[in-house]
Amino acid sequence: MWTLTETTFAPTSQHHKETIFTIGNGYLATRGVFEEGYPDESRATFIHGVFDDVPFAVTELANAPDWLPLTIWLDGEKFSLAEGQILDYNRQLDLRTAVLSRRVRWQSPGGKTAVITFERFVSLADEHLLALRCRVTPEFDGSIEIRAALNGCTDNRGMAHWQRIDQGQIAPSTAWLRSRTRASGIEVALAMRLQSTSSLQSEYWDAENVPTLRQVFRACRGETLTVTKLVGIATSRDTAHPQEMALEHLNQAPGWEAALEAQKQAWDREWERCDIVIEGDEEAQLAVRFSLFHLLIAAPRHDNRVNIGAKTLSGFGYHGHAFWDTEIFMLPVFTFTAPHIARNLLDYRYRTLPAARRKAAQAGYEGAWFAWESADTGEETTPTWVPDFQDKKKLARVWTGDLAIHISADVAYAAYQYWQASGDDAWFAERGAELLLETARFFVSRAEWQDERRGYGYQDVIGPDEYHDHVSNNAYTNKLAQWNILTALDVLAWLREHHPARAAALTQSLHLSDETLAHWRTVAEKMLLNVRPNGLIEQFDGFFALQDVNLQDYEPRTKSMHEIFGIEAANRYQVIKQPDVLMLPHLLPDEYRQEQIQTNYDHYTPRTDATYGSSLGPSIQAIVAARAGHVEEAYRYFLLAARADLNDVRGNAGDGIHAASAGGIWQAVVFGFCGLRLTQEGWRLEPRLPAAWKRISFRFFYRGRQQVVELPAA
Amino acid sequence: MWTLTETTFAPTSQHHKETIFTIGNGYLATRGVFEEGYPDESRATFIHGVFDDVPFAVTELANAPDWLPLTIWLDGEKFSLAEGQILDYNRQLDLRTAVLSRRVRWQSPGGKTAVITFERFVSLADEHLLALRCRVTPEFDGSIEIRAALNGCTDNRGMAHWQRIDQGQIAPSTAWLRSRTRASGIEVALAMRLQSTSSLQSEYWDAENVPTLRQVFRACRGETLTVTKLVGIATSRDTAHPQEMALEHLNQAPGWEAALEAQKQAWDREWERCDIVIEGDEEAQLAVRFSLFHLLIAAPRHDNRVNIGAKTLSGFGYHGHAFWDTEIFMLPVFTFTAPHIARNLLDYRYRTLPAARRKAAQAGYEGAWFAWESADTGEETTPTWVPDFQDKKKLARVWTGDLAIHISADVAYAAYQYWQASGDDAWFAERGAELLLETARFFVSRAEWQDERRGYGYQDVIGPDEYHDHVSNNAYTNKLAQWNILTALDVLAWLREHHPARAAALTQSLHLSDETLAHWRTVAEKMLLNVRPNGLIEQFDGFFALQDVNLQDYEPRTKSMHEIFGIEAANRYQVIKQPDVLMLPHLLPDEYRQEQIQTNYDHYTPRTDATYGSSLGPSIQAIVAARAGHVEEAYRYFLLAARADLNDVRGNAGDGIHAASAGGIWQAVVFGFCGLRLTQEGWRLEPRLPAAWKRISFRFFYRGRQQVVELPAA
Repeated sequence: MWTLTETTFAPTSQHHKETIFTIGNGYLATRGVFEEGYPDESRATFIHGVFDDVPFAVTELANAPDWLPLTIWLDGEKFSLAEGQILDYNRQLDLRTAVLSRRVRWQSPGGKTAVITFERFVSLADEHLLALRCRVTPEFDGSIEIRAALNGCTDNRGMAHWQRIDQGQIAPSTAWLRSRTRASGIEVALAMRLQSTSSLQSEYWDAENVPTLRQVFRACRGETLTVTKLVGIATSRDTAHPQEMALEHLNQAPGWEAALEAQKQAWDREWERCDIVIEGDEEAQLAVRFSLFHLLIAAPRHDNRVNIGAKTLSGFGYHGHAFWDTEIFMLPVFTFTAPHIARNLLDYRYRTLPAARRKAAQAGYEGAWFAWESADTGEETTPTWVPDFQDKKKLARVWTGDLAIHISADVAYAAYQYWQASGDDAWFAERGAELLLETARFFVSRAEWQDERRGYGYQDVIGPDEYHDHVSNNAYTNKLAQWNILTALDVLAWLREHHPARAAALTQSLHLSDETLAHWRTVAEKMLLNVRPNGLIEQFDGFFALQDVNLQDYEPRTKSMHEIFGIEAANRYQVIKQPDVLMLPHLLPDEYRQEQIQTNYDHYTPRTDATYGSSLGPSIQAIVAARAGHVEEAYRYFLLAARADLNDVRGNAGDGIHAASAGGIWQAVVFGFCGLRLTQEGWRLEPRLPAAWKRISFRFFYRGRQQVVELPAA
Repeated sequence: MWTLTETTFAPTSQHHKETIFTIGNGYLATRGVFEEGYPDESRATFIHGVFDDVPFAVTELANAPDWLPLTIWLDGEKFSLAEGQILDYNRQLDLRTAVLSRRVRWQSPGGKTAVITFERFVSLADEHLLALRCRVTPEFDGSIEIRAALNGCTDNRGMAHWQRIDQGQIAPSTAWLRSRTRASGIEVALAMRLQSTSSLQSEYWDAENVPTLRQVFRACRGETLTVTKLVGIATSRDTAHPQEMALEHLNQAPGWEAALEAQKQAWDREWERCDIVIEGDEEAQLAVRFSLFHLLIAAPRHDNRVNIGAKTLSGFGYHGHAFWDTEIFMLPVFTFTAPHIARNLLDYRYRTLPAARRKAAQAGYEGAWFAWESADTGEETTPTWVPDFQDKKKLARVWTGDLAIHISADVAYAAYQYWQASGDDAWFAERGAELLLETARFFVSRAEWQDERRGYGYQDVIGPDEYHDHVSNNAYTNKLAQWNILTALDVLAWLREHHPARAAALTQSLHLSDETLAHWRTVAEKMLLNVRPNGLIEQFDGFFALQDVNLQDYEPRTKSMHEIFGIEAANRYQVIKQPDVLMLPHLLPDEYRQEQIQTNYDHYTPRTDATYGSSLGPSIQAIVAARAGHVEEAYRYFLLAARADLNDVRGNAGDGIHAASAGGIWQAVVFGFCGLRLTQEGWRLEPRLPAAWKRISFRFFYRGRQQVVELPAA
């Protein structure tokens, strides 16, 4: 099960398929649109870090100049799946090699038939190289024309980001285009070469913003002609001379076969590190590889100035912004299977510390308060207002940027987990420790003494469950803050022992006097945690007093309870968007016993909008259900996560991959069903496998060495 | 003084010049950008009625596919004013013929020199024909290449509105492009033909969305080559087959010389109707013709489904929306000089009556409440929120769409004025009367009985002065509402006498029972008008109690008092954006005596933000100042209006022509300085000419016959 296959083309699922057939290399990704175009397609290539402003709205990843266009003309008739007859159709994404291919037998309206195949990949061996091969086997004698272009006229759902700088031709079959984002001024250069078997005629059209290479061939019935389009790409984020760099990579590129071979080898190395084999369950097997694939193609391997957006690089949703989705859902996958990528992503947070410090300071706090939505600089990019569900002309206030303070603890958690798993002391001393200390400092300064309850807590926040805003003492927030502060104190102790100079420097720069640290400990120890005597944790002050709802009464439904209740009214019900309390036994498994987990699982599960609430929910439900001993229920949640994108069960996969869900799927398998735990001594497994799984095998890195797990144990 | 001239090109005033050098024909207009392009240009062509949605914002006139591109290559070097050396430069707009021309002597970076001239016009004789001629006289021997394109990749300041439908070549030198707006689905077709003296080589590039015709010439020192680009244009608003229609107009087009001759004749007829000659004051002479020109090129001659936007068709400002600017500032010009255009504009309001009725009904009122900002359908298109002056990330609520009810009376006023001046009884009986009656019905239903003052009035409104919102009993609104109701009663009486069938139909459809009409009269007679015993009119309840400000204390300044005070705080001061009370003696001159005008003029003038408040203000100040006998002060206000666009005194002419100001300039001359008044018997003059004006002559239509005025009388 390495292949995603489509055997008929249905325009109704066009955008969903464009998302799942996205290919990428961690530098950029291109949606699974057709080379020749199709009406109403959502055509896009996103390059990491290439953000541009949107007037009066938040910055967004700009849909890059298009490297893909290749059109075919059979005796003067343009090939398009929107016309003529599709006699045969097959599209495949090979997850093992990241090559997307399509084979179409097509008859033109005028009756000319040909078999046309496309193969394309964005090279993992050379991130600045993109490759496309087209083969045409005519069933007629006549002419075939191929046009390959670079297109600078792209937009983000109507928002134009690019201005042309210049373009031109170098060799007869080589042309280039330089474009610049309008506000942020990032330059992208593309250079293409069109190689083919003997063409009759070849020319270059220097048309404004669409440099085009055109080749005309004699069509002989049954004889296949092959055209290869190679494209070099670079941006001003990579070099001061993007055009030269793009050309360099194009010129150094080997032919199609050699480039494809390098691609396969590069991907073999990826899968060698992270593949999971599940025997006995083809759907799970494909879903796991599909999820890993989409994380891998979005993961920056050579850039620590970028993060992975909530929709990866695969769609317009959330504008390319990164959320806690990275640290809590995706990063564990990289921490355990690709520590170098995990470190890049954590470096991004380290690099955005100045912005996080500014955000905290502007609100009157110390330390680092990370942006809820983060783009290029780490400034807060959560929109303040969005169109209302009910009346798109009205605006609804978005509060997460103001109130979702748990993001800082999420970042700290991921940094600590990376350290624990990797043993990368050098990085942690240099960067990770500061992340822990600065976030702890924020949580201490943000904590409020609540006299009537003799404890510290946080008023006016939003926890993971976004159906309730402006809540107080959200259990997740308070507990993670406590963990963050206490762990930071441990980290400082470790640092003082092993890296005294660094410890001294941080002690001074962060003003960590003994009195201050004593106060930290007091705040942490007196943190209000909302635990009832029976172990039940109240999600926030007053949650249990809210109106209870039987979610079954609303079935069947096709939208979230948020939309059904309305944004304001949702606050009044005990219905939650996603696990909130249940995040705690997932993240801090050693702090909760089986019985308490069971109690909380039983209370919150029926109150969670698992189908249309957050796509982050099902995988966590699966993990906690497995922990609580409900393996088959866990498996049902796992499938809900697995189908989010593959089957588009939420109906919004067209906006891009649900990246947190993809990360959650890996975690459900590894932490949930296989029960991987880090311990003081190393790691152990507590497997609780679904019945159908005959065998599972996976690999992960622990302290720099690859570990191999086979279950059931041989 | 028929010519606008620019003798050096200054990139700093690029956008201002693009606006004032706009050409048009009442069907479309094209900003004065360079054919070959220039960095950061604000390139645009707007076609009447071609609106498209903007996600989560108001609809806007879509910047059309670009008919203009023509680039020149001297021995392979591209002509651009951004490079090489400008040895000589001259640009002229001939207001008499609406031909824009540019002559440049330019040396390429590589040392090739040529004299290049461009001439272009959008035909008034055939609204679907656009013409451009380029002549190149090289001072070298070598090659010259010309490329002419149609470009479908345009946007409105970053908002992309178009999708390509199709394109192609017909004859060797003829190509076409079809595009469609993304949301509203309006198709625009362009077809171009490139004609030239003997070219060595000629080809067509069918590049995606940029069909391009290319011709290569031998350059011989001193020999001029001439290229003519003719373009046919049509939209799906004109015909079911825009492409055929565009080609038809292109094919029927005569050559350049004949088309230009037709253009001159068509414009002669325009000026014959409306020119004003002022001797002794060149600045005034040019300003008056310039204003008339910009109204004429924006005025729909063959389409009564569109209105003129506040920035005409000359810029992106206000999205092409129409305001009261049309009825109160522009329409009088057409009513008196081009009644057929005035009728088209009034027909537009008549056609949007259904939307105006819906607006009233949705707010719980009867009759017709016209949209404050009106686009294609007449639905309200005022934005509800706009970015705040101080912090662009914050939003400020815009209240005019909710509160500026005077728009309905403004429409009624213009319809009545048109009737009085034109004597077009047929139109008035069929359409105008209904406008008067429906707006009156609105004002009666919207009126509130104010018990403590024993009168009717309007609470929570905005008058012409937008520095103050949520005011009560705005004198302008109350007085115009009174006028509207009383005039509607007169109109109904006239209708019953002269068009009894129509009167009966309206009586029935609008429920005009005798009791209802008696109530109308009561409301009108008991309308609160805020007149003090000394004749001073309080702009609204409590205005005189607001904090007074000496505007001199803020000089010199470069922004409006609204920006200085802030939107909220401006409400607290006796500083107004534009004449409000003083609109009354302007619109209803017979109802105010000299002394009362003087009293109000003296009070409000020093409190009016004449420089950076509304551009609608100075012309009205000029008219009322003249009426009050202050001719030289009136002249100073007149110059302020005259310079708004010509000299860009407000700094925002780049957004488009201040159309209301342009209309106000004509009114200042005709109603202000010349003192034209309609009377029961006909018309009379009360001239008060500025000292410098030796002679003034103008023409206007009264009851279908052209009148000629010469002052001082011979």
